[in-house]
Amino acid sequence: MIVVMKPGATKEQVQHVIDLVHDYGLKDHPIYGTDRTVVACIGDKRSVDKGAIENAPMVEKIVPILAPYKMASLEVKKEVTQIAIGPGQFKIGGTKVGIIAGPCAVESAEQIATVAASVKEAGCVGLRGGAYKPRTSPYSFQGMGLDGLKILAQAREETGLAVVTEVIGLEQVDAVAEYSDVLQIGARNMQHYPLLEAVGKTNKPVLLKRGMSATLDEFLLAAEYIINAGNPNVILCERGVRTYEKYVRNTLPLSVIPALRDRTHLPIVIDPSHGTGHAYMVPSMCLAAVAAGADGLIVECHPDPEHAASDGAQSITPQVLTELMDKLRRVAQAVDRDL
Amino acid sequence: MIVVMKPGATKEQVQHVIDLVHDYGLKDHPIYGTDRTVVACIGDKRSVDKGAIENAPMVEKIVPILAPYKMASLEVKKEVTQIAIGPGQFKIGGTKVGIIAGPCAVESAEQIATVAASVKEAGCVGLRGGAYKPRTSPYSFQGMGLDGLKILAQAREETGLAVVTEVIGLEQVDAVAEYSDVLQIGARNMQHYPLLEAVGKTNKPVLLKRGMSATLDEFLLAAEYIINAGNPNVILCERGVRTYEKYVRNTLPLSVIPALRDRTHLPIVIDPSHGTGHAYMVPSMCLAAVAAGADGLIVECHPDPEHAASDGAQSITPQVLTELMDKLRRVAQAVDRDL
Amino acid sequence: MIVVMKPGATKEQVQHVIDLVHDYGLKDHPIYGTDRTVVACIGDKRSVDKGAIENAPMVEKIVPILAPYKMASLEVKKEVTQIAIGPGQFKIGGTKVGIIAGPCAVESAEQIATVAASVKEAGCVGLRGGAYKPRTSPYSFQGMGLDGLKILAQAREETGLAVVTEVIGLEQVDAVAEYSDVLQIGARNMQHYPLLEAVGKTNKPVLLKRGMSATLDEFLLAAEYIINAGNPNVILCERGVRTYEKYVRNTLPLSVIPALRDRTHLPIVIDPSHGTGHAYMVPSMCLAAVAAGADGLIVECHPDPEHAASDGAQSITPQVLTELMDKLRRVAQAVDRDL
Amino acid sequence: MIVVMKPGATKEQVQHVIDLVHDYGLKDHPIYGTDRTVVACIGDKRSVDKGAIENAPMVEKIVPILAPYKMASLEVKKEVTQIAIGPGQFKIGGTKVGIIAGPCAVESAEQIATVAASVKEAGCVGLRGGAYKPRTSPYSFQGMGLDGLKILAQAREETGLAVVTEVIGLEQVDAVAEYSDVLQIGARNMQHYPLLEAVGKTNKPVLLKRGMSATLDEFLLAAEYIINAGNPNVILCERGVRTYEKYVRNTLPLSVIPALRDRTHLPIVIDPSHGTGHAYMVPSMCLAAVAAGADGLIVECHPDPEHAASDGAQSITPQVLTELMDKLRRVAQAVDRDL
Repeated sequence: MIVVMKPGATKEQVQHVIDLVHDYGLKDHPIYGTDRTVVACIGDKRSVDKGAIENAPMVEKIVPILAPYKMASLEVKKEVTQIAIGPGQFKIGGTKVGIIAGPCAVESAEQIATVAASVKEAGCVGLRGGAYKPRTSPYSFQGMGLDGLKILAQAREETGLAVVTEVIGLEQVDAVAEYSDVLQIGARNMQHYPLLEAVGKTNKPVLLKRGMSATLDEFLLAAEYIINAGNPNVILCERGVRTYEKYVRNTLPLSVIPALRDRTHLPIVIDPSHGTGHAYMVPSMCLAAVAAGADGLIVECHPDPEHAASDGAQSITPQVLTELMDKLRRVAQAVDRDL
Repeated sequence: MIVVMKPGATKEQVQHVIDLVHDYGLKDHPIYGTDRTVVACIGDKRSVDKGAIENAPMVEKIVPILAPYKMASLEVKKEVTQIAIGPGQFKIGGTKVGIIAGPCAVESAEQIATVAASVKEAGCVGLRGGAYKPRTSPYSFQGMGLDGLKILAQAREETGLAVVTEVIGLEQVDAVAEYSDVLQIGARNMQHYPLLEAVGKTNKPVLLKRGMSATLDEFLLAAEYIINAGNPNVILCERGVRTYEKYVRNTLPLSVIPALRDRTHLPIVIDPSHGTGHAYMVPSMCLAAVAAGADGLIVECHPDPEHAASDGAQSITPQVLTELMDKLRRVAQAVDRDL
Repeated sequence: MIVVMKPGATKEQVQHVIDLVHDYGLKDHPIYGTDRTVVACIGDKRSVDKGAIENAPMVEKIVPILAPYKMASLEVKKEVTQIAIGPGQFKIGGTKVGIIAGPCAVESAEQIATVAASVKEAGCVGLRGGAYKPRTSPYSFQGMGLDGLKILAQAREETGLAVVTEVIGLEQVDAVAEYSDVLQIGARNMQHYPLLEAVGKTNKPVLLKRGMSATLDEFLLAAEYIINAGNPNVILCERGVRTYEKYVRNTLPLSVIPALRDRTHLPIVIDPSHGTGHAYMVPSMCLAAVAAGADGLIVECHPDPEHAASDGAQSITPQVLTELMDKLRRVAQAVDRDL
Repeated sequence: MIVVMKPGATKEQVQHVIDLVHDYGLKDHPIYGTDRTVVACIGDKRSVDKGAIENAPMVEKIVPILAPYKMASLEVKKEVTQIAIGPGQFKIGGTKVGIIAGPCAVESAEQIATVAASVKEAGCVGLRGGAYKPRTSPYSFQGMGLDGLKILAQAREETGLAVVTEVIGLEQVDAVAEYSDVLQIGARNMQHYPLLEAVGKTNKPVLLKRGMSATLDEFLLAAEYIINAGNPNVILCERGVRTYEKYVRNTLPLSVIPALRDRTHLPIVIDPSHGTGHAYMVPSMCLAAVAAGADGLIVECHPDPEHAASDGAQSITPQVLTELMDKLRRVAQAVDRDL
């Protein structure tokens, strides 16, 4: 941490800051520049709220230097973590790019059976589908619950696909962990810490979605909560962020791929469905994500999007998915990977 | 809802959309303009995901017309809801503006006793303070828990102030409801629906903070969840939104005050501490909020901000609070209200 | 400037950075912390692009310390600059808050005569109105040009109000300087540097609007361009920034008032019309701005907003303005100022 | 346009809106729904400011239906416009993806000769380089001006590359048009309308950069200004938008590629240098852009980025460029295009 003093800070004011730095258990290292004084603070104290020093007289700002997370960082591990999922133990984070597809919500056994067969046939490794749905409106369809989980488990049985499904509350963690292969934490719950700790105590991989306006630090600290609770198998999922742009549901910032690769060893999956909100944009964003180095994709796919119970506008059909897979494979190979 | 067709949509494509509109239980009303056709859809179906229609061929966009919330809206109730809080039964939403102050976190009985006395003396009506702290980092101070709640209850006993404190998980709802007067839902939990439903089943008023990039529709739908679960006493709290601006922790959009007043009957409280992130900005934003018509303020105040366990940078001292209260009263009177 | 090295940077890599620091004419001051090395750079070189050092191996980031502007900063001048405008030489930046009002565009001599009389009668000090209009669409009304300027000058003659009008291109600077009292630089032109330099060579005060997503540094650097060209009379104008929020045309961040006051001696004017985009929100934002310490307001006012050639949605009527002025005066007095 | 009335609007209030609609030369078509009335307005009047109707009593909002631009839209032309640039008349918008590279600023004849040779050798079709630099700070390097233009023209002579360079003011339009092949309008000038009109009167193709927080409508209206002035050869360039994200200089929203393709016939070029701000992110974003369907790339490339006069942090070296070109070609072929 660096404390930057305002121009004109007196010796006493600098000393007051130095005293505060000591109070926080850090060593001071003042530097007297041409225009102003800065106090570098030495020591690894990630847990204290040093921002408080900003309140001292004539302090202009506090500049943090250390990343606030540790176990998720490259300081701990250099190579990408590979996380095996589902019956096939496909390794997310390996050379092959894993494609996960399926509907927003589980609507019926027939719907899932149809989609799962198509998804498998197209060459995907995972099946997504929500049994518990966090809905913005209390009047929207809230999911099939436990019945939905059983339908998903049945589809896994039949196809060998890894089942990825969301857990929205503490009370469902056990059931979701029992019936599925990957526990998804949705964007709205990225900072619901009790839930992060609960999935951190299971032995199932966690797909952690980035909050809709979370910073990378906040995203990696959420992963740190899960790892810190005992579960190192965290898959990071970018699903777009909220910006001023209106032609998309969210803005999909693919530069998180190199940025996260520069900061963390955790594998990275992209969700171009929520990342755009419109089915017609999904294929090109899938191709772009793979070209940029994503370790996987998670895509909404519905046999009849015009009648989908949720997220119809952003769901592609099984036919579009099948055609897309061929191009995805070619792009993956062009960047020395494969599907 | 209005379905806008692309230019060149054929009669069959328009008919396909009309059929879909019927599938969703709505009546169609097509309008043939100079350049394009739009299909107005008539009927009150707030619960279905009509976005799916966007997937039909040659549909350009879907324009919603109805607000998605109902009980929180002015359609149901025109006058501002007054919500009585604490031992004094001060009415948030009445003519008087209610000021709530206190530290970010309960740190000790002494700290709270000191602050509570100052807050009471300054003329505030409520005491804030977190016993359970949702912290971005797993390594940060997480709050005193039940002991913190008891300390707050003791302060209420001594001062008559209403206690406002956050509940971050389902398992604490009962305890927080027992010891406090107002249950706060933090910004990070604004869309944690199980928690909204749980506080909706208590009989204590709820202070609902707007999520850090929530739209007004999402904010009011979160309120709707609580009301829908049985608790009509929801106080809306704006605490700033995330934007590209870096000189503040959050951007405080005071225009939500007239905008919410135009949409909802629920009372509106402003949090200029999180809304700016810097103590030196807090007094002017308090004055601005009252001038703009806020029903209350919630302000972080700490006897020794330089050593605060959390949010020190944005906490004002009791002395600054006392001086501010006098100006706040004058501004309130200038807009025909009072403290 | 501080150069932060990544963990594991070798001695040679640190030395390479130190050599670069010297190449840029700065002195190095390396600090060896527990986890990483940082190189503080000493010397006042605001003009070089030091970001280039980021490209050196094992550099994590560059942290600037000095503000990039100088003449606009408090380092040069502590007290607020007072800028006298118009025939009455009203001082923007003095104790009194100056209210400027008028239509978006000059539409006719009658329209301006009517508005100017109302604006004067209400107690305002300035008349706004666009003769040259920068319009988003080439098909929109582009202003009356020179005729519009003459109409405004005539209104000044009759009322004594200071005329504030926009200059959108180099070729109009002379004419606008001749006929008006304050040259407005619109938000879209905040970074059109040739124009900033041109108005910097006139002897008329400049009202500089903040760009719609400009940072405070960029805003103050635009002011610096004007001052650097020879014109110290720059009035800063906040008109709202672009965010994800949709219920407003722009989000009005009133915390710029304390933030700018903490950084610059230039006076601050708020534009709640563009800052909200909706007439019904304008009065409360005017009151809030004055409570927060604004030195002035610039408000769109039209006798018949429903038929205005531009910005009708955000224009208040003369009647609303008149009623508002009384409340504004009371709020100004409540914060120890006046109108 | 659709006018949405508030619930409870009276017959007279609806009639008042209908009268206004007529005043604006439109035909009315009222629809009486279950909860509220909407008035659809029929007629093609893109030039009037219909927002004014929002001011009428009991109007909730105005929903525009028509796109505000016309000549840039697909309504006028379905197939992608191909724009031939430079001595080689490479067609931007054709099957082949055109790569343009070069330094941010022209610094010397030697620098440009070196870069141009590398850029040509690597297989690019254009050379970028700024002779006139719009700089945020008045103290930064402002470019070599006319000498810089001559250096670029010399490089074209030697390599056959198309020269792309920025024009920042009216007074340089002629010179830039004389010496270069493509006139670049920078992001800061996207809404400087006099300049758009001036380049619209030249016969050189224009590369129009999207403003840093422009909407797609504003972007396409800026293109419309140029086309409307007589120049149909507009290349759209996305260079990232400003968001809350801090790990990048700008957020690069690659979903503009399918979104623009859905709205306009103009070709699309991506600038991953400004779109990220960091050299290490540039290669993956180049690959992603080509996979997503970009018609071209414009990339900053400098032989010695650590000493670049500007934008050093985001410039890749000629060596990185050369290695990248091979991968780009493979990705282009994977999506049925080529370099």
